[in-house]
Amino acid sequence: MRVYNFSAGPSMLPLEVLKQAQEELLDFNGTGMSITEISHRAKPFEAVVNEAVSLLKELLNIPDNYYVLFVQGGASTQFEAVPLNLLVKGKADYIVTGNFSKKAYKEAKKYGDIALAASSEDKNFTYIPDMKSLKFRDDIDYVHFTSNNTIFGTKFTEFPHTDATLVCDMSSNILSEEFDVNKFGLIYAGAQKNLAPAGVTIVIVRKDLIENPMSICPTMLKYKTQATENSLYNTPPCFSIYMALLVLRNLKKMGGIKEIQKINEYKAGLLYDYIDNSSFYTNNVVKADRSIMNVPFVTPSEELNDKFVKQAAASGFVSLKGHRLVGGMRASIYNAMPVEGVKALIEFMKKFEKENA
Amino acid sequence: MRVYNFSAGPSMLPLEVLKQAQEELLDFNGTGMSITEISHRAKPFEAVVNEAVSLLKELLNIPDNYYVLFVQGGASTQFEAVPLNLLVKGKADYIVTGNFSKKAYKEAKKYGDIALAASSEDKNFTYIPDMKSLKFRDDIDYVHFTSNNTIFGTKFTEFPHTDATLVCDMSSNILSEEFDVNKFGLIYAGAQKNLAPAGVTIVIVRKDLIENPMSICPTMLKYKTQATENSLYNTPPCFSIYMALLVLRNLKKMGGIKEIQKINEYKAGLLYDYIDNSSFYTNNVVKADRSIMNVPFVTPSEELNDKFVKQAAASGFVSLKGHRLVGGMRASIYNAMPVEGVKALIEFMKKFEKENA
Repeated sequence: MRVYNFSAGPSMLPLEVLKQAQEELLDFNGTGMSITEISHRAKPFEAVVNEAVSLLKELLNIPDNYYVLFVQGGASTQFEAVPLNLLVKGKADYIVTGNFSKKAYKEAKKYGDIALAASSEDKNFTYIPDMKSLKFRDDIDYVHFTSNNTIFGTKFTEFPHTDATLVCDMSSNILSEEFDVNKFGLIYAGAQKNLAPAGVTIVIVRKDLIENPMSICPTMLKYKTQATENSLYNTPPCFSIYMALLVLRNLKKMGGIKEIQKINEYKAGLLYDYIDNSSFYTNNVVKADRSIMNVPFVTPSEELNDKFVKQAAASGFVSLKGHRLVGGMRASIYNAMPVEGVKALIEFMKKFEKENA
Repeated sequence: MRVYNFSAGPSMLPLEVLKQAQEELLDFNGTGMSITEISHRAKPFEAVVNEAVSLLKELLNIPDNYYVLFVQGGASTQFEAVPLNLLVKGKADYIVTGNFSKKAYKEAKKYGDIALAASSEDKNFTYIPDMKSLKFRDDIDYVHFTSNNTIFGTKFTEFPHTDATLVCDMSSNILSEEFDVNKFGLIYAGAQKNLAPAGVTIVIVRKDLIENPMSICPTMLKYKTQATENSLYNTPPCFSIYMALLVLRNLKKMGGIKEIQKINEYKAGLLYDYIDNSSFYTNNVVKADRSIMNVPFVTPSEELNDKFVKQAAASGFVSLKGHRLVGGMRASIYNAMPVEGVKALIEFMKKFEKENA
């Protein structure tokens, strides 16, 4: 039986994609080889990379003055690659709205004059600071923020207002809703939520920004290295890139970002509405700042939370335990979570409430 | 039809492993999820990492005073991680015997006083420098070398004689033959030749060596970061680690390194014997230094080389084109290349010689 997997990442992949990968795992595209065995310098694999880049450009409307790169090491590696590549004047401002943006801020401080522009840690990251009143320093290289906070279930509905270069970690909501790439200098995202199995990270970077990495920047962390070599400077994570291609094809076939956004808003709406109308479950996030990807919630007690997680797992709703920084439960409902999965979870929640309220 | 794939990496995987991966791609171990979807913090995945580490320790006889880490970014990332972590006195000596050791040497020079202890570039890397006469500087942090040179088809049959810490890039011959881990301070290897699909790199490092990374070393490149978190500091390349586990189980079942070494020596012996007895094909490597993993060879002319590569591919022997630095052909015959593949290649070579000599 296939379960509904609410993991924050790695997370569900579309069933169609998994089935295709399974079917062709011993013979990719008539080559007589598995996609896991093909040289990254061979034409069939180059075609995979090129189509994946081109679909990302198409689906996200990425203009020609941006590179799309596939790199390794996850967002955590980007926390340092960003300052190592983009600090030229040596100054950047960070908005801290969760665990990962805090880590990004901390890592960047090793490399320059990094300031905290705003933080929502005072209320355990249950809101996004007001963008309208937010000020940044003069002469900064960039402003960094995290568009969706996986652990705390918040998201930016408005982007920072600044003439400085915007840098954004979109690991947990890229490809889930429309946005204007032109507003950004650099976007990065670990693939393991909305795009592919873990092991590949996308970087979308404006071409003029990659020319001045710091001299201490490792070659493999330089965007210029990867851009010059079409992400094939060394052996890339081939299988994850191939899976990304299948996911992107699937997304295009279903109507692209506009369509998936409607579905994502519908799924999140169902779950938040149910929670808000319940006197048993609570979501502590400021309503206007709620994520449509990650929905944390609690029951009235720690014991009931534990019982919920266990009974849910036994009923086929897995990985619902919340992050230790928040406790309770978290339902991650990325692109690949079907509407039926959310509806079934709500039915389970109702039943659990009835039995335990 | 499954072809014989002589790619230098990514390269063949055992058919049994691919079949098992295919069979359980939609449901790993009764979890109702694909291995590509499971949280890296979930018990079923932790079990994968732990078993893979423990099998590596068993198969390679790795003592308890070493960590076994799974990291990202390939050997190319290790070219910098090594000096960033191990340069304490700030001095290291490098032996350059090919393209990758030359890159490693070049990258290390950014971080300290790095000397070239020996190079075989004078004869286009067709031999390994004599270890008996090789001297190293005093007070160095380590000596670095590459045990098998994928492009040039050479290997070290004797390791450098020194009291300094030995660091070795074993990307293209790890798990192919027995060796004594105790001789080394650090061993690293990209997985995509003998171990797993691309995307994961193994690091085997003596525990006392990870305590003094340079302050400019990115957190993700610090061995200490990965060692402290059992390679789960951030989301690892889960699928590649899982595949590594299946390959390691397969290797254990067939008798471990001692057995595979016999088979590898037999396969390489067949091919070298045939080439040496032919007046049509030539291998230019000094006999005593020949790799048993990568066998470069040429016909009497460039045109015949091209014709060979094309006809071979059409007959189901793929990725035989040599690296551009060497030209001609190269047969990479890693652990997963069956004896029948080498025998069939020799038959094809005979036929081609008869038709073109």
